[in-house]
This record gives sequence, structure tokens and C-alpha cells, in this order.
Amino acid sequence: MTVSITPTGGPGQPDPSPELDELYRGFEKELLVPLWTEIGDLMPAEPRPAAVPHTWRWDALLPLAERAGDLVPVGRGGERRAIALANPGLGGAPYATPTLWAAIQYLRPRENAPEHRHTQNAFRFVVEGEGVWTVVNGDPVAMRRGDFLLTPGWHFHGHHNISDEPMAWLDGLDIPFSHSMGSTFFEFGPDRVSDTSAPDRSRSERLWAHPGLRPVSHTEPLPNSPIAAYRWEHTDAALADQLALEDEGHPGVLEPGHAAVRFTNPSTGGDVMPTIRAEFHRLRAGTATATRREVGSSVWQVFQGTGTARVGEREWRVGRGDLFVVPSWVPLTVTSDGELDLFRFSDTPIFERLNADRVHVEGPHQ
Amino acid sequence: MTVSITPTGGPGQPDPSPELDELYRGFEKELLVPLWTEIGDLMPAEPRPAAVPHTWRWDALLPLAERAGDLVPVGRGGERRAIALANPGLGGAPYATPTLWAAIQYLRPRENAPEHRHTQNAFRFVVEGEGVWTVVNGDPVAMRRGDFLLTPGWHFHGHHNISDEPMAWLDGLDIPFSHSMGSTFFEFGPDRVSDTSAPDRSRSERLWAHPGLRPVSHTEPLPNSPIAAYRWEHTDAALADQLALEDEGHPGVLEPGHAAVRFTNPSTGGDVMPTIRAEFHRLRAGTATATRREVGSSVWQVFQGTGTARVGEREWRVGRGDLFVVPSWVPLTVTSDGELDLFRFSDTPIFERLNADRVHVEGPHQ
Amino acid sequence: MTVSITPTGGPGQPDPSPELDELYRGFEKELLVPLWTEIGDLMPAEPRPAAVPHTWRWDALLPLAERAGDLVPVGRGGERRAIALANPGLGGAPYATPTLWAAIQYLRPRENAPEHRHTQNAFRFVVEGEGVWTVVNGDPVAMRRGDFLLTPGWHFHGHHNISDEPMAWLDGLDIPFSHSMGSTFFEFGPDRVSDTSAPDRSRSERLWAHPGLRPVSHTEPLPNSPIAAYRWEHTDAALADQLALEDEGHPGVLEPGHAAVRFTNPSTGGDVMPTIRAEFHRLRAGTATATRREVGSSVWQVFQGTGTARVGEREWRVGRGDLFVVPSWVPLTVTSDGELDLFRFSDTPIFERLNADRVHVEGPHQ
Amino acid sequence: MTVSITPTGGPGQPDPSPELDELYRGFEKELLVPLWTEIGDLMPAEPRPAAVPHTWRWDALLPLAERAGDLVPVGRGGERRAIALANPGLGGAPYATPTLWAAIQYLRPRENAPEHRHTQNAFRFVVEGEGVWTVVNGDPVAMRRGDFLLTPGWHFHGHHNISDEPMAWLDGLDIPFSHSMGSTFFEFGPDRVSDTSAPDRSRSERLWAHPGLRPVSHTEPLPNSPIAAYRWEHTDAALADQLALEDEGHPGVLEPGHAAVRFTNPSTGGDVMPTIRAEFHRLRAGTATATRREVGSSVWQVFQGTGTARVGEREWRVGRGDLFVVPSWVPLTVTSDGELDLFRFSDTPIFERLNADRVHVEGPHQ
Repeated sequence: MTVSITPTGGPGQPDPSPELDELYRGFEKELLVPLWTEIGDLMPAEPRPAAVPHTWRWDALLPLAERAGDLVPVGRGGERRAIALANPGLGGAPYATPTLWAAIQYLRPRENAPEHRHTQNAFRFVVEGEGVWTVVNGDPVAMRRGDFLLTPGWHFHGHHNISDEPMAWLDGLDIPFSHSMGSTFFEFGPDRVSDTSAPDRSRSERLWAHPGLRPVSHTEPLPNSPIAAYRWEHTDAALADQLALEDEGHPGVLEPGHAAVRFTNPSTGGDVMPTIRAEFHRLRAGTATATRREVGSSVWQVFQGTGTARVGEREWRVGRGDLFVVPSWVPLTVTSDGELDLFRFSDTPIFERLNADRVHVEGPHQ
Repeated sequence: MTVSITPTGGPGQPDPSPELDELYRGFEKELLVPLWTEIGDLMPAEPRPAAVPHTWRWDALLPLAERAGDLVPVGRGGERRAIALANPGLGGAPYATPTLWAAIQYLRPRENAPEHRHTQNAFRFVVEGEGVWTVVNGDPVAMRRGDFLLTPGWHFHGHHNISDEPMAWLDGLDIPFSHSMGSTFFEFGPDRVSDTSAPDRSRSERLWAHPGLRPVSHTEPLPNSPIAAYRWEHTDAALADQLALEDEGHPGVLEPGHAAVRFTNPSTGGDVMPTIRAEFHRLRAGTATATRREVGSSVWQVFQGTGTARVGEREWRVGRGDLFVVPSWVPLTVTSDGELDLFRFSDTPIFERLNADRVHVEGPHQ
Repeated sequence: MTVSITPTGGPGQPDPSPELDELYRGFEKELLVPLWTEIGDLMPAEPRPAAVPHTWRWDALLPLAERAGDLVPVGRGGERRAIALANPGLGGAPYATPTLWAAIQYLRPRENAPEHRHTQNAFRFVVEGEGVWTVVNGDPVAMRRGDFLLTPGWHFHGHHNISDEPMAWLDGLDIPFSHSMGSTFFEFGPDRVSDTSAPDRSRSERLWAHPGLRPVSHTEPLPNSPIAAYRWEHTDAALADQLALEDEGHPGVLEPGHAAVRFTNPSTGGDVMPTIRAEFHRLRAGTATATRREVGSSVWQVFQGTGTARVGEREWRVGRGDLFVVPSWVPLTVTSDGELDLFRFSDTPIFERLNADRVHVEGPHQ
Repeated sequence: MTVSITPTGGPGQPDPSPELDELYRGFEKELLVPLWTEIGDLMPAEPRPAAVPHTWRWDALLPLAERAGDLVPVGRGGERRAIALANPGLGGAPYATPTLWAAIQYLRPRENAPEHRHTQNAFRFVVEGEGVWTVVNGDPVAMRRGDFLLTPGWHFHGHHNISDEPMAWLDGLDIPFSHSMGSTFFEFGPDRVSDTSAPDRSRSERLWAHPGLRPVSHTEPLPNSPIAAYRWEHTDAALADQLALEDEGHPGVLEPGHAAVRFTNPSTGGDVMPTIRAEFHRLRAGTATATRREVGSSVWQVFQGTGTARVGEREWRVGRGDLFVVPSWVPLTVTSDGELDLFRFSDTPIFERLNADRVHVEGPHQ
């Protein structure tokens, strides 16, 4: 790989000359690049993310996943039948954003995805279906519509479908971030999941998913949430409660007509994993969110209802299962038709922990 | 008040002499006290708490509270019909331990205890009955058997009984600590509770008591738990889950046969209030806890079942509603007859936050 | 010890009657005390500390310490020739405030105070003299005029005078707090100090007292400052720098004419020890501080210069070596004649860590 | 940009077929990429950083910087005469590692680099020369050999040379990280530095660079170190002290013969800035460090002395001013000829704050 310097014009740039050319050739030979030719790209006034706003349609994704079910085995080596969103701004890489991976994973009836572990943090979100159990460090966790499930970094995990129906779900990970940072470790586990029982609740939930309670046997802060599954019934109830409080004139909603809950680590009150924030949003019929710009990128998936997502200059009608990506600092507004439920995940904890977060909100509901 | 110096004998002490007497009189005149005469008391090898182990019987307390209901009004000035445990080692002060206040509060049918606020942190625990709502910063909170309810420092609160039955419960506060530290502020609120509605769930629960979820409108750490009531159904389920996990061979219990949950602040994962820890313990039939010594003091109340509490040299048979006090560094063992449920609160967060906590566990279950 | 209930009159109190008397006798028998008779004392509108403002004069203390040098041995058993300030509001206890111990310690030429350790946190401040080394966990630390020296909890320490002159200094500890909290442990070490070398700088300083630098071998937060001695030359320079910055029109001083530095734990930026804050203050000639009330108590010692201290209703002229006590929430104003230097220590970290701190500032410099 | 899927062979991969081709074309059309063809690259067993070990020679860099001084103006638009190291593994980008920027900046006599601010965190390290002042938020900071200087994110800063000699130094920033994360903001300040005074010490040092002391006017934790300059005299003394302690048999050095200090934020004890760690290392003559692998990348510059750096499979003789890069998880060993001093900076705080740090040490000094 060689370095190549392209002079730019404009203020503060040196005048072209043979001597300057010679200097630049000297830089190239020594693997050096001047700031003055690069500063416009490297240090813009505001973020200019390479990722672009984009949407992927559930009714296009799901048939391709089903077809992959016919043609692609799931097992050791390939590990997962997962199909990732490739942001068109990111050079063909399987990255939804520069930090986030989002993929549809698909398991046919009775299939088994082998156990492994990796330092990447992962979650699953189920937009429809049931019948698969994910086994996280030996704890079998049922997956059902509306559930949000965790596989934090370096936890062994596999999946198996105990039903006679196929199942598809959304996988979210910080693969792009880990990859560019050079921090990824990976290890194979058993070729088949280590516990094929299919309990209604995971052991993690039985220990940790009691509101405001923690086991006295575990009282230290943990880097990741110990709750393997956040069940839809709780999420739905929390959102309904916020809207009911609003009806009664009490605070709680994020903005008028817009309820939102964050999935948290009960041992700290913070985000579920160090690099990933996950939330659920519910808009009343006919609600428009304030327009919001944030440092950091996010991926949204419609859970139920229909509406309009405006991301920068793009605008799409979206419905159940559709996904869209909001790059860093691109303004987002969501408008609901009827009641609209959306799942969202983002890389915001990275910026907050590094004191690089910034938010700008404008519009009627600021 | 004058200072008075009493010479002691023993190693390292000066020989008695008229000159020494004269020196000591000089000290007294200048309000000075030597370390060498006091060190044995001030700096013992291990804590020698002034508080002593003691038990108070529910069947003695409740009739006195009922009789106070007949004779003592509840209203502005007296503020609360609360009767405090006075540890026999603490000079007649209404202190269960040097830091903790524990009292039975009693409201007759339709009575109303006026609103006020104070910097002392407070909670209520309900060993039996229902019908009272406590109103915390305007939010009415139902009180029912098994519930644990918070009134953190500087929150306005009042109580009113909407039923035709009297109700008694346990109040726990850090009054002795605040008083000795000189940190207490107090302010009157309305003479009657500000909201007499009687909802099944408080607004705080509707916003915060969903497992692992928090409202996106409130994402900062809070000094106190925002959950006003921890309901018995959740506590009971969490304890039952721990014992079921033990039956299945999985971790979770504190020690064999001994399930325990801590009430926590969901915005931090830490204790509910800065000075008070609260927990619920369940022992299987025929279980003896390990013997445990802790820096800091605690108060226990039997919720249901019977058993034996051994605190230092004292041992009592205890049953429903009975309270007992464990002074600092005095060893505690609890043994159950049948299944035994106990509520516990302590001042441990003070010591943990000041790096002065110490625990020693011995016995079969260490 | 028995409980004794004294009825009070006033609003909200029950009417006297034989039945009420009988009830109160029932309370006493069961070791119970009602809130309604005690609330005025227990829960005042503002702190009513038992400790009172008081001053102790260096020219009265020092001769008594010298005389103790003649009459009282220093060695195992008595441990230290230390003479404590006894606040006249605290019942004759050797307590400067309800949390803080302040004593003059005195060593004759060539004397040796044996090693021990205790959970109480301790420091020394040297208002005059030199020649003593304190040995902290085996590290000999020179003591010289203006130096502030640490002996955090559970660190072994002894003192020895290698000079031909006696030396006196101020000891500050959290003995009263530890004692009332029941958290004190104590252990004897060697009868003579373990290292009698007399280096100019301690090993702790050589590792840690370089501005903004820490050894890569120790990168975790520590509960106590690892710096055993804060030298006068640094304190003096920091104060002089603040006043020079003020002269040049730049921020830095606490208020006009008033420079102040806090001694900190370089591994956290926080206070030197979990229970004790220590600061040095310098007032320009003719400066009056704003009037300040704080929850928590403090002890001040004049290092050099003269001025006036007003503490609540008391006012004293103070000069070199004089000590005075500011109880919780009592307003303090200090006024300088010429330049005035003061050392101060307080229990503020306790309140800050327990979310019970409160400050009110008024006056010209607010 | 289009997506293009390349089938791979190997375990777990689907058999080639026209149907599979059709599926892959469907993926491409919908901007989807399967995990199973990418997993080997995305999720390796250990980090496989794109960056490679490389060294840049001071005696090659400096003449090029001098020549740039002749040909390239410094002023608004180009902003800085800075020449960045371009890691040969990173596609020609001006990045030393995937997160870190390292550049030689050069100012001719009397030149002035205009003020601006950006969210990227920056520092300067001076391997030789003096005469330039950097002005950080209006505070002029002298730059001299051995000094380490901070310009945290969003602080205005400019540089001006008040001497008759040119000056070159090392700039370190997190530009690559900010750029890939989409978190960069930039703003122009005055075209010339706002304060051309040339004090010996900056105001930040006068307030903050006193060991273990902080101004009482600033007692909160700060996200960045408030010390604008860490002076060589302090760094040198701290390193010398560690080696002297080792000579005397006391702990302090990182490993035998290897002293090391970390530059810290005195308000927290943590790293100087959220994304950058900076340290200074000194090896005694003839010392070999243990071999160390770390998640995260670092850049080293020799300050004085000569030795050998072995980074993975590469090994170089290095001397004054030479720079070398250690990519993530590549083992590093440094060996000294005579006494060898090295400056080092890394992105480790990013990994520590995100719970993704990992270290492996092996060799004689583990």
C-alpha cells in the first residue's frame, strides 16, 4: 500500500511548484501525509458520516432469509444463518453503520446453531414468531415476539429451534466497531447447544427480572445486564403506563404522545451493554416526534403500526418489520399513522462514556 | 458542662502524684482530655457497641399502639402516632441502634397524618393490614401486607386511612444518625394529605417498577430509588425463584436453604437510600444461617413463620411481627422451624460508602 | 437503663389523664418511646448541634503539653501523649465535634511512640517545630512546620523524635464518629518504630507527589491518598499562585482575597480520606470571608497571622496555633488583620457521600 | 456503491449452485451480506488489525518538516503545518493506527498558527527545541523539550513561535477514531493567537500543578485534565525516584529496571483525556521489558538513548526522535542499550471505558 498526496486548492494551501511536488513525493516515500490537504475531510464543521440513511423492507428481507433456509446449512464454520444490512455508504461492508451490525437470522424447524463466544456484544429482537431458545452460558432463553434478548461479550451462546415452524429475528452487534478497533476475540464452543430444555423463563430472569430487587448473592456492579430476556409483556405495560400517566396529566412520556423505555442493566441502572443502547418507543396515533440529531448512529425496526420516518433528506413510509438507519448527526423525525411501536438500538453509550455525546432537538415538542 | 479526668491504672499510665493531679486540673480548666486515660474505651480491639441485642414482641407492641390510638391524637405538632423501640443500651433514647429508628405507627379508621418533609430517610414495612395510602411528593401509594415503601429524605409525605379498620406498620428511619450528625432539616406541609385518591399502583411504580426498564425521560442516576413501593408479590416471587433454582441445582441463594433479595434503586443498582439497606430473607424449614458479624447495626422483623434468633449471647424464639436488633459486630444466627420469612434493614450503606465496612462469616454455610 | 417518658404540652399532644400515664408506663416497661413527645428535639427545623463554638489557645495548650512531657510516659498502653479538645457541649467527652477528634501530641527529645493501627483515619498538622518522623506502614515520614501528614485507617504507624528538641503537633482523627458508629478496630504493632531512618522525603512522596503523574505500577483508585506528606512548600506556592492570578485578573481564588487549596487523593481527585476533608486557606490583609453555613463540623487552626473568627454568636481574636470549632450549620466568618493563613479540617466527605451535604453562603463575597 | 458477495469454501459453507448464485444476487440487490461468507474476516480468533508495525525515523522526518517550512504557509484554511504518519496497513489514510493520529508539526521563527477548536482530543510532546507557546482557551503555555501538553476536545488553541529558531514537535490526536465514529465538530477562532504573552508557567499549571492539591474553587471531576503542561523536570524526577526506590529495595517500578509514569487528570486520577493515555517510560541500561500484548494501539517516541524495539515480527534499532507503532494485540518488547527514555501514547482508555481491554504479559519480568 502506498501513500498518495493530492494537492487541493483553496485558502491556506501552498502554491503548486516543482519543489512542492518533490516535497510531496518525499512525504509519500516516508509514509507521511500532510494535514493541510486533508483537513477539510478529516475535520469538518459537523459530522459527515460515510453511512447514509437507508431503509430495508421486511417483506423483501424475509423471503430471502427463507430462501437461504433452503440453500444454506447452519453449523460449525458458517456458525449462523444471518444476513446483514450493508449500508450503501460503507463500501459494501456488511455494516448498518460504522459501529453497528444488524442482521436477520433464520432457523428452520428443529435446527441448531452451534455454540461459540466472542467479545462482540450481541442482542436479538423478535419482531414475529417463537419456538427458538437461545442458550447463553448454559441458560436456555425462550424467544418470542416482542422480546429483547442479550448475549453480552464473551458469553457462550447457541440457538435451537424446538418447533415445527421456522423463525427469523433481528441480531444486533457491535461487529463493525470491534473490527475497526482491533478488539475482537472468538472461540468455538460445543457443536450443539449445551442445554436443550425449553423453560418458559430463563434462570437469569428468575434471579434478576423482579422490579427493583436483586439477589443478595450478587451485589456488585456488572459490566453487562444479567437479564438475558426483557419480555414484551413488561415493555408493553411500561409504555402503556406512560401514556396513561400522560392522559392523567402526569410526567413520564418523553414528549407529548411519545412514550419510551430504555432497556437497562439492573446492577447499575445504565445501558444493557457497554457499546449498545436499546429502547422501545410508542407513538400515539397522529404524533410527530421532535426532530432530533445525535452524535452516533442508530437502527430502528417497526414492531407494529405504520408511519413515516424522515431521516435527513430521505423519507419513507414504514410498517411492521421494516428497518431504517440513522447516521450520526442526521436529523430524524418519526410520524405515526395509528399507534406506532418501534424498537431502536444505537451506539450512544460509546460516546457518552468517552464524553463525545452531543444532542440537538428542535421542533414542536422540544 | 465540665470536663472531668479519671486516672486509670495499667500499662503506659503515669504514676499518680500531686503534680499529675495538678496537670489534670489544668486540662479540665482548659477543656482538654488526655488520650491515655481514654484509649481503652475509645479504641478497643473490636467494636464495643453501646447498643445491646434486644427483642420486642409484636403481641406486646400492637396492644400498646391500639391503646395509643384511643388516647393520642394524630395531627399537626405531634405529626405521627409512632412508638419507637428504645435500645436498652442507649440511655433511654428512642433509638433501636446508634443510627436507626424503628417504630410502630398506627392510624385509626379514616385518620389523616399531616404532610411534612425532613432530611431523614424513611421507609415503611407492612407486616399486616391494609387501607392506608401514604402520599409521597403528591403521589398516593397503597400500603398492604408485605409491601416495602420509601419516603427518601426531603420528600413531602403524609398518610391517610381510607378504610374502616385501623392499620399499624413499621417505620424505619435514620433519625439517630441524622441527629448525632447535626444534619437534620424539617418543614411542615399541608395539614391534610394533598391527594386523597386511592389508586392501586402509585405513579412511581407505573414509571419505574418494570423489570430492567426505565423511562427515557429520566436517565440520570438518582440519589434515592424512585420506586415508592416494592410490592409483596414481587418479593415473594423473587424469593420463591431463588429456592426453586436451588432445587434445580443452580446458583442464586445466599447460602443453602437461604434465599435473600435486596431492595434497590433501579437508577443505580445500589441501595434504596444513602443510609439504609433493606432486604428480605427466606429460610427453608430447618435451616440455620451461617454466623455472621458485620460492622453496622440492623433491625429484623419476622414476616411469617417461627424460628430462633441468636444474637451474641442472647437467644429468642421469634414469630410473626417480632423485632430484634443486631448491634455492630455482634454475631447473628437465625434458625427456622418451618419456612421463615424475615424483613431486615441496616445502616450498611454508610459504612460501605465510607470504606469502613467489614464482614466476618463463619459456620457450616460460609 | 430504663426508659422514661416526659409528657410535653403544645400542639398535637394528648391531654394528660390517668389513662395516658398508664399508657406511658406501658411504653416504658416495653422499652418504647413515642415520637410525639420527642419530635421537637429529634426533628428540628434546622440542625441544633450539641457541640458549641469554642476556641482553644495555643499558649494555654503548649505549656500543658510540655508539663505532660515531664509527667506522663509515652509507650505501650497509653500509646500516645495526646491531649484532646473537649467540646463543652458534648458532655465531657474528648471530642472537638460529634465526629472529629483534635489533639495536641507531644514528644520529648529522642522519644518513641510505639506502632499500632486502627480503623480510625488520622492526620497530623505541624504548626511549628521539626525533628519527628512518623513511620506509616514502614515508611518514615519527616514532620516539619506547615506539613500535613496522613495515617489512613488500618495503616500501622509510630512516631520517633530524632532531635534534641521536643515537638508538638495537631492530631486529627474521626474517633468520635467511629466510636458512635461501632466501627473501630485496633491492633498493636512493634513497641518501637520499625524503621528509624530519617529521610528527607518519604517513599510515598517519591512515588506519588509529582504533579499530575502516577506510577504505572499503581493505576487503580485507592480509598485513601497514597501521599503520606503534603509539604508546606507546595501548599504555600499553590496559595501564592492563586493570589497572583487574582492580581492579574484571572479566576482561581475561592472569593476575592481568599485563596484556598484542598488536600486530595491523587488516585481519585477526591478527599484524602473517606471521612475527613483538609484544606489550607489564605486571606489577604483586611479580607472578610463570606458568611458560610455548612452541614457538618470543622476545626480550624491558625498557621500564621492574626484575625477574627466569628462563629455563630461567638467572636474571638485568633493568632498562631489557636484552634476553634465550627459546629454544624453555625455561620462562620473569618476576617484577617494582615495576611492570615489557616488550616482547616472537617467531616464534609461523610455528608457528601451520603447525599446529606448542604451549604448556604451569604455576605459580600457570595 | 454496490454490494458484492464472494462465496468462500470451507466448513459450514453452502454448496455452489445456480440457486445459490441467484440468492446472492438477491442479497446484493437488497444491500445484504451474509455472515457465513464474512465471518472469518469479521470474527477472527484474535485481533487481526489492519494497521501494521512500522517505524518512522526522526532524521527523515525533520528535514521534510523543514522543507515544508520553506514551501507551505501556515494560516487559516490549512490551519497547521503538520505532517502525519500514515500506517502502511491503513490504505494511505493519514492514520498511525485506526484510532490515533501522530504528526510532526513545524513552526518557523515568529510564525503563528491560527486558533480553532474541534472535538478531537489533542496533545503535543516536545522531543527537542523551545520557543513556541500554545494558547489553550486563552492561556499561553510554553513548550520545551520533554514537556507533554494538552489540548482537550473543544478547547480553542493556536500556536506562535516567539523565537528566532524554528521548532518541531509531535502532535497526537484521536482524529481517526472521531472520523470513523462521525463525532467530529470544528470551529474557527481568531486568525492570530489571542494572547501573545510568553509566561514561564501557564495559568493552568499555577492552579493545578501542585502535587496532591486542588483549588477549592474547582472541586468537581472534570472530563479532561485541567493541567495544560506536564513539565519535563517533574517527569524526569518521578522516573528517577522510581529507579532510586528500586535500588533501595522498595516497590514502585513497573518491572525490574523499568520505571514508568502515567500523565493523569488530577481531578479524577484517571487518564488525561477520555480517548488517550500518555506515559513516560525509562529503562536502565541493558534492560529488556517483558513482552506485552494489549488490545488497542499505541505510538512510541524515543526521547533519549538508543535501543531495540521488537513489534511482532519486526525489529528496529531506535534512537532519539524515532517513532514506532504497535497495533492491537501485537507483542512488544523494548530493550535498552544505555539508559533509554520513551514517550508513549495509546487509545487504551477507549477500551477500558467500554470493558473491552485485555492485556497479556509474558517473559522474564511478568
